[in-house]
Amino acid sequence: MTDLTDITTPLAAQAIELPSWAFGNSGTRFKVFGSPGTPRDPFEKISDAAQVHKHTGLAPTVALHIPWDLVDSYSDLRKHAEDNGVGLGTVNSNTFQDDDYKLGSVTHSDPKVRQKAIDHHFACIDVMNETGSRDLKIWLADGTNYPGQDDIRARQDRLADSLAKIYERIGEDQRLVLEYKFFEPAFYHTDVPDWGTSYAHTAALGDRAFVCLDTGHHAPGTNIEFIVAQLLRLGKLGSFDFNSRFYADDDLIVGAADPFQLFRILYEVIRGGGYANPDVAFMLDQCHNIEKKIPGQIRSVLNVQEMTARALLVDTEALKKAQACGDVLGANGILMDAFYTDVRPALAEWRESRGLPGDPMKAYAASGYQEKIEAERVGGTQAGWGA
Amino acid sequence: MTDLTDITTPLAAQAIELPSWAFGNSGTRFKVFGSPGTPRDPFEKISDAAQVHKHTGLAPTVALHIPWDLVDSYSDLRKHAEDNGVGLGTVNSNTFQDDDYKLGSVTHSDPKVRQKAIDHHFACIDVMNETGSRDLKIWLADGTNYPGQDDIRARQDRLADSLAKIYERIGEDQRLVLEYKFFEPAFYHTDVPDWGTSYAHTAALGDRAFVCLDTGHHAPGTNIEFIVAQLLRLGKLGSFDFNSRFYADDDLIVGAADPFQLFRILYEVIRGGGYANPDVAFMLDQCHNIEKKIPGQIRSVLNVQEMTARALLVDTEALKKAQACGDVLGANGILMDAFYTDVRPALAEWRESRGLPGDPMKAYAASGYQEKIEAERVGGTQAGWGA
Amino acid sequence: MTDLTDITTPLAAQAIELPSWAFGNSGTRFKVFGSPGTPRDPFEKISDAAQVHKHTGLAPTVALHIPWDLVDSYSDLRKHAEDNGVGLGTVNSNTFQDDDYKLGSVTHSDPKVRQKAIDHHFACIDVMNETGSRDLKIWLADGTNYPGQDDIRARQDRLADSLAKIYERIGEDQRLVLEYKFFEPAFYHTDVPDWGTSYAHTAALGDRAFVCLDTGHHAPGTNIEFIVAQLLRLGKLGSFDFNSRFYADDDLIVGAADPFQLFRILYEVIRGGGYANPDVAFMLDQCHNIEKKIPGQIRSVLNVQEMTARALLVDTEALKKAQACGDVLGANGILMDAFYTDVRPALAEWRESRGLPGDPMKAYAASGYQEKIEAERVGGTQAGWGA
Amino acid sequence: MTDLTDITTPLAAQAIELPSWAFGNSGTRFKVFGSPGTPRDPFEKISDAAQVHKHTGLAPTVALHIPWDLVDSYSDLRKHAEDNGVGLGTVNSNTFQDDDYKLGSVTHSDPKVRQKAIDHHFACIDVMNETGSRDLKIWLADGTNYPGQDDIRARQDRLADSLAKIYERIGEDQRLVLEYKFFEPAFYHTDVPDWGTSYAHTAALGDRAFVCLDTGHHAPGTNIEFIVAQLLRLGKLGSFDFNSRFYADDDLIVGAADPFQLFRILYEVIRGGGYANPDVAFMLDQCHNIEKKIPGQIRSVLNVQEMTARALLVDTEALKKAQACGDVLGANGILMDAFYTDVRPALAEWRESRGLPGDPMKAYAASGYQEKIEAERVGGTQAGWGA
Repeated sequence: MTDLTDITTPLAAQAIELPSWAFGNSGTRFKVFGSPGTPRDPFEKISDAAQVHKHTGLAPTVALHIPWDLVDSYSDLRKHAEDNGVGLGTVNSNTFQDDDYKLGSVTHSDPKVRQKAIDHHFACIDVMNETGSRDLKIWLADGTNYPGQDDIRARQDRLADSLAKIYERIGEDQRLVLEYKFFEPAFYHTDVPDWGTSYAHTAALGDRAFVCLDTGHHAPGTNIEFIVAQLLRLGKLGSFDFNSRFYADDDLIVGAADPFQLFRILYEVIRGGGYANPDVAFMLDQCHNIEKKIPGQIRSVLNVQEMTARALLVDTEALKKAQACGDVLGANGILMDAFYTDVRPALAEWRESRGLPGDPMKAYAASGYQEKIEAERVGGTQAGWGA
Repeated sequence: MTDLTDITTPLAAQAIELPSWAFGNSGTRFKVFGSPGTPRDPFEKISDAAQVHKHTGLAPTVALHIPWDLVDSYSDLRKHAEDNGVGLGTVNSNTFQDDDYKLGSVTHSDPKVRQKAIDHHFACIDVMNETGSRDLKIWLADGTNYPGQDDIRARQDRLADSLAKIYERIGEDQRLVLEYKFFEPAFYHTDVPDWGTSYAHTAALGDRAFVCLDTGHHAPGTNIEFIVAQLLRLGKLGSFDFNSRFYADDDLIVGAADPFQLFRILYEVIRGGGYANPDVAFMLDQCHNIEKKIPGQIRSVLNVQEMTARALLVDTEALKKAQACGDVLGANGILMDAFYTDVRPALAEWRESRGLPGDPMKAYAASGYQEKIEAERVGGTQAGWGA
Repeated sequence: MTDLTDITTPLAAQAIELPSWAFGNSGTRFKVFGSPGTPRDPFEKISDAAQVHKHTGLAPTVALHIPWDLVDSYSDLRKHAEDNGVGLGTVNSNTFQDDDYKLGSVTHSDPKVRQKAIDHHFACIDVMNETGSRDLKIWLADGTNYPGQDDIRARQDRLADSLAKIYERIGEDQRLVLEYKFFEPAFYHTDVPDWGTSYAHTAALGDRAFVCLDTGHHAPGTNIEFIVAQLLRLGKLGSFDFNSRFYADDDLIVGAADPFQLFRILYEVIRGGGYANPDVAFMLDQCHNIEKKIPGQIRSVLNVQEMTARALLVDTEALKKAQACGDVLGANGILMDAFYTDVRPALAEWRESRGLPGDPMKAYAASGYQEKIEAERVGGTQAGWGA
Repeated sequence: MTDLTDITTPLAAQAIELPSWAFGNSGTRFKVFGSPGTPRDPFEKISDAAQVHKHTGLAPTVALHIPWDLVDSYSDLRKHAEDNGVGLGTVNSNTFQDDDYKLGSVTHSDPKVRQKAIDHHFACIDVMNETGSRDLKIWLADGTNYPGQDDIRARQDRLADSLAKIYERIGEDQRLVLEYKFFEPAFYHTDVPDWGTSYAHTAALGDRAFVCLDTGHHAPGTNIEFIVAQLLRLGKLGSFDFNSRFYADDDLIVGAADPFQLFRILYEVIRGGGYANPDVAFMLDQCHNIEKKIPGQIRSVLNVQEMTARALLVDTEALKKAQACGDVLGANGILMDAFYTDVRPALAEWRESRGLPGDPMKAYAASGYQEKIEAERVGGTQAGWGA
C-alpha cells in the first residue's frame, strides 16, 4: 500500500469550504435549541469559521447565504474575513422563506413570483461580484405536497426558462451550480429531485453550469459514489455539499453515519480526476442542532481529511490487476486495506510539521475561544436559518 | 358485494378526533407560512374544529396538546367546546420544546430532567381530570443524533421507569397511549422507534397502557396493516394518528398519498374487531403547511369515512371462500372490487338523509365562515407549534 | 368531469405488449413453483398470450426474449402469432445467464466477453429483422457485489463503447431502448441504475436510442411520474415495463400494489403527449409466481385500461384553473375525483359494444382454455427463465 | 483506550457458526453460477467449513439445513465433522421448497399442509437429537403476494398454534429460535416480518424460545443495534445471522457493506451482556454468488473478529463520563476512536501466538486446498439451495 509520506502533496492541496450558517442555530420543525456564544451577525460567523481554518489548515473559505448573510458592505466583510485568514466563497441563494414562495419560486405559475425569484438571483450575482465569489449555488425548495396541486411538466419548462435567465447573467469566470434533493420541504414532488434532472438542466444551460451533489439528498439505498463517477465522466460535477444521514436529509457531521460510504465517495472523486480539481468544490452543508458548532465543523473537516488520506492510500496498481483478473475478494481486500488503515497518528505528525496542532479538537478546546464568545456574545439575536 | 344500505349502522358510529394543532400554523424547518384567519388561542382552534364536525358529523371531539393548549380554565374551554357541539378528547404531552430536553426527557441521564418530564405528564393528567379526557397520549422526541452520544440500553431502562411512574398516576378509567416513530427529530436512534418497543413497554405497564399507531411513523415499505392486525390480536392497539406520507413523517392529509393503503388498514381494523370499538380511537395528526386548514380537516375525515365505507363493503363471505381454496386472483379481486367502488354518491345521499350537507367541502366554502375568521382574526399571534 | 363516452377514441387506441416469459414459470431464488398447463415452447407461449388479446382487445403483440424464445424459424413463429390474432413485438436480449457473464457482459473488463455480449445483440437484431420488430430492449444485469470489485468509471466507458457498436447495427426504423434498474442481481453497484444514466447514454447514442422505464426499478419513495414527465419533456421515453412492487423488483401485477401511483403515472403520460404515441410503447414485465398466468395477464391489461380511463377523465380545464390560482385542495380534488370514479361498469358496456366480453376474467374462466392446456400439456419441460 | 492485550480473553472466547449452505452454490432468481470445487454432499461441505476453522480458530461448528443436508447417518456426519476438528450446530428447517408450501407452510389455511410443516420440524428435532444440536432455527417464507390473498390475522393465529406444537416437542436443553424477515420471497405481507412479531410469539411460547436477528432482514434505515439492545434487555436475543446488505436481503459478506454498522451492533452486544454469552449464538448466513466460498467465509469470520476487537476496545469508563455530562462530540469521539483503530496487525500477532496463521486468507490460498478440491470434485451434482 502507498505510504502516507507519498500522499502529502495531494493532502496539502485540500480545501473545504465552510457554510456560514453552520455557525448559527439550526434545528428541526419541532424545536431550534439555542446555544451560548452563537454569532449574531455574518461577521461573527466568519470569525468562528476562521477558527476552524486556524486549527486545521483545511478550511480557507466561507460560503455565504443570501439573505441570511446580507451586510451593508461586502468589502468590509471581505476584509474581516481576510484579517481572520480566510476568504469568502460560494454564494447561496434562498427562495424558500418569502411568503410569495409558498407554492414555488422559479417554477411558480405566476410570472411575477418567478421574476422576483430571478431578481433575487441577480442580487446574489451582485454580491458575488463584490465578494469575488466564483459560484452561485442554487438549491430550490420548489415542489408540491399533493398530486394535482400543480403541473409537474409545466414547472420543468418554467424552471428551464428561469435558470436560463439567471445563467445569462453570471460572468465568464462564474458558474451556476444546481443542487438536487430527493424531498423536503416539498412532500409529493420536488422540481429538482435527482442528479438526472440537475444534469439535464445544466447540460442545456452550458459549460458554466454544473451539478452540486449533496451527500444527504438521495433516496434510501442510493449508490452515491456511482453518481460521483458518472458526473465526473460527464464533466458536470461542480461541487459537493458534504454531510451525513441515517434517514432523510439529516445534515449530520460528514462521515458520522457511514464512514465507509464517505471513503468510497472520495475514492471515486480521486479515481475520476475530481480531487484537487478546481472544477469540483468541496463544501460542508451541515446542521449542529445539539452539538457545539465550531468543534462540530473541526470534526467535519478532519473527517474529510482522514478519509481522503485513506482513499489516497489505495494501491491502485494492485487494484487494477486484481480487477483485471476478476479476483473479487482480492480487489475488495485492497480497497478495504486502505479504509482500515489508521491514518490518524501520521496525519497528526504531518499537521504538526506544518505548524498546525496535532489534535485540532483539543487545541480548539484549549484555546479559550469558546469561553470567550460565550462570555462576550450576550444580547442581540442569535443567528439562525431565519437570519 | 355488500350494499351501502347495509353498512349505515357502522358508518353512523364513526367518530374521528381532530387535533387542535391542525388549525394552527405548521411547516418545515425551512419555513412556517402564516395564513389569514389562523386561530390565536385554544378557544378559536376549537371553534374551527367544530366547523368540521358541523359539516360532516364525523368529528365530535378535539384533542389537546399541552402546553400549546394551556388555558386558565378548562371548564371554560370545555363549555366553549360543548357550546360549539363538540367535546374535548385526548391530551397530548410535549417534552420536546423546553431547553432542558435538548438531549432527552423521560430518558435523560439526569434524574432532574426526567422528573421534570414526569411532572409535566402529571400536569397533563390534571388537565385530563378537568376536561374529562380518557387518554394520555405520549409521543417522545427522545433519541440521539450520533452513535455513542448516549447509552441506548440505559435509556430504555430509564424510559421504563419514567413510564411506570406516569402510568401509576392515571385513573382507573384513563389510559396511557404510547406512540412510536421511526425517526425525527432524532437522527441516529429514537427511543421508541417501532411498534415492538411500544408494545414491550405497554405490555410491561399493564392493561390500561396501549400503543398508538401513527400511519406516517414507519420505515419505507413497512406493511402497516400487518401491524394493525398484530396489535389488535395482542389486544394493544389503543389509537390511530391518521395522516399520509410519501417519504418521511410528511403529515399530509390522510388518504392523499396512498388511498389503497388506507383502505387496507381500515379493512384490517374492521377484520380484527377494532372498528367502532371504544378501545381503538381514531385521530388525525396532520399538518396543513400550504393548504387551508379547516377544509383540509374536512377532506381528511371524509377520506377516512369514504375508505371505511369501501372497507365495510368487502364481501367477507366470498373472500373467505376464495382464500380457503387458494384462489389468489379471486381473493384479491374481491378486495379490489370494494376498493374500486365509488361510494361517494351514496354517501352524499346518506349524509343528506341525516341532515348533513351532501358535499361538506362545498358547504363549508359557501358558509362564509372562512371569510369571517379571515376578517375578524386580525392582530394577535397566530397559533403554531410554538404556542 | 369528462364522460366516458368522450374518451372512447383514445381508449380504443390502447395497445399493451405482453412478455412471452410471463406465461412460463417464474419465482424467487428460493423456489420456482411449477403450474399445470405451462407452455413448453415459444409457440405455446404465444397461443396463451393470444388468449389475453382475444378476451380484452388490448394486447395485440408479444415481446420475445432471446435466447428463451429461440426457434428454428421466426417466419413460422410469426405465422403462428398471426394465425392466433397477434403479432411479434419487442426483442429482449439476455446477457445474464451465460457463465462468461458472471462479472459482467457489455461492461466486462475482458474485451472477448464484451464482444460476445455485443454479438448476442447482433443476433437479436437478426431476429428482429425476421420478426419485423422495431425495438431492441436492453436490460443489463451488469454490476458488482463488492466495493472495489471492479472499476465503476471504466465500466461506464466500456458500456458506452459497447452500446455504440450495437446502436450502429440497428436499422433506420429500429430503436435501441435501454432499461435501468436500481439493484438486483448486483448488490453493490449496477451499471445502469437510474434514469439519469440511461438518459446520458441514449442521448449520446442518437435519435433512435430511448429509455425504458420499468415501474419496479426505482429506489424506495421515488416519484415515478416525475421521471415520466421529465423523459417525455426530453423526448427520450421509449417504453414502459409495467408491473408493481411493495419492496424491491417484486414484478407483481401492475396496479396491484399502488393503484393511485399507476393513475398518476398514466396521467403524466397523457399530459406529456406520451399516450397513444407510437414512440412510447406500453409493455408488461411481470412474474406470476403463485397466481395463474393467463388470468394474471388479463387482470394486468385491464388494470392499465381502467386506470387509463380514469386518467383520461381528469377535467384538465378545471385543473388548470385551480392550479393557476393556487387552490391546493381544489386542484388535488379534481385529480382525485377522476381516480375515485368507478369506470368499470361503463368499460364493460363499451367492451361489449365492441364484441368483447364485458368481464374478460369470467369469460376466460368460462372458455375452457385453461382446462384444455392443463390436460394437453403433459410431458416436456415447462418454460421458465432458463428456457 | 483499552489495549488489545487486555481483550484477548474475550477474543479467545469467540465462536462463529458457519452455514453449510455457504459452501454450496447460490445466486439470484436470474442465475446461479457454478464454481469449480463446489461440494457435492454434506460431508464435503463440512470438510470445507473445517478449513475456515483451521485457518482462523473462529468457526468450531457448522449449521445444517434440512433437507439440504439430509444424510443416511448423522453419527457418520458427526464423526466426519469431529475428525475435521469441528462440530455440528444449529439445525435449520426448510418449508419453502415443497410444492405444498406454495401458499404457506405453518400458516397455511389447510390443516394438512400445516401438519406436514409441523412434522418436518419434528423430523428436524429428530436430527438435532442425533447431532446433539441445541437450536432449532425456524425461518419461514410464509406470506402473501397480493392484498386479500389470505387472512393476515388468521395466519397469525395459525402460526401461533403451529409454533406451540413444535415448541412442545423440543427437549429441555434445546431451543426454538424464530427468525424474522422484512420481505422475500413474499412480496405483499410476510408472516414474521419484524422483531416485534418474533418477540410476541417467542414470549408466548416460553423460556426456551428466542428471536434470531438476521442483519439483512430489516427495512431500509432500520437501526439494528437498537433492536439488539432491546432484545437483550428483554432476554430474548437467541442468535444472529450475520451478513451484510446494501438494498434488500443481499446476503453479502458480513461487514462488507457497512463496517461501522457491524461495529455498532457488536458494541451493543457487548454492552448488553450478549457477547461470549451462550444464549446468544453468532452465526453467518451468507451467499457467495460470485466470489470463492471458502475464502469468502474466512473473510467473514475475520471481519467479525476484527470488529469485535474494535468494539471491545471502547473506553467504556470515559464514554460513560462523556455521556453523563452531555458531551455529544466527546462521547461520539470515544466510540469512533475505537472504530478507527487498526487492530489487524495486533490480531495477526496474537493469532500467530496461538499457532494460527497471521494472515488466514494468504494461508488458505497457499494451502493448496482449493486446487485440490477443484481437481478432485469432478462429476456429481454441485450442492446448492435445491440440495
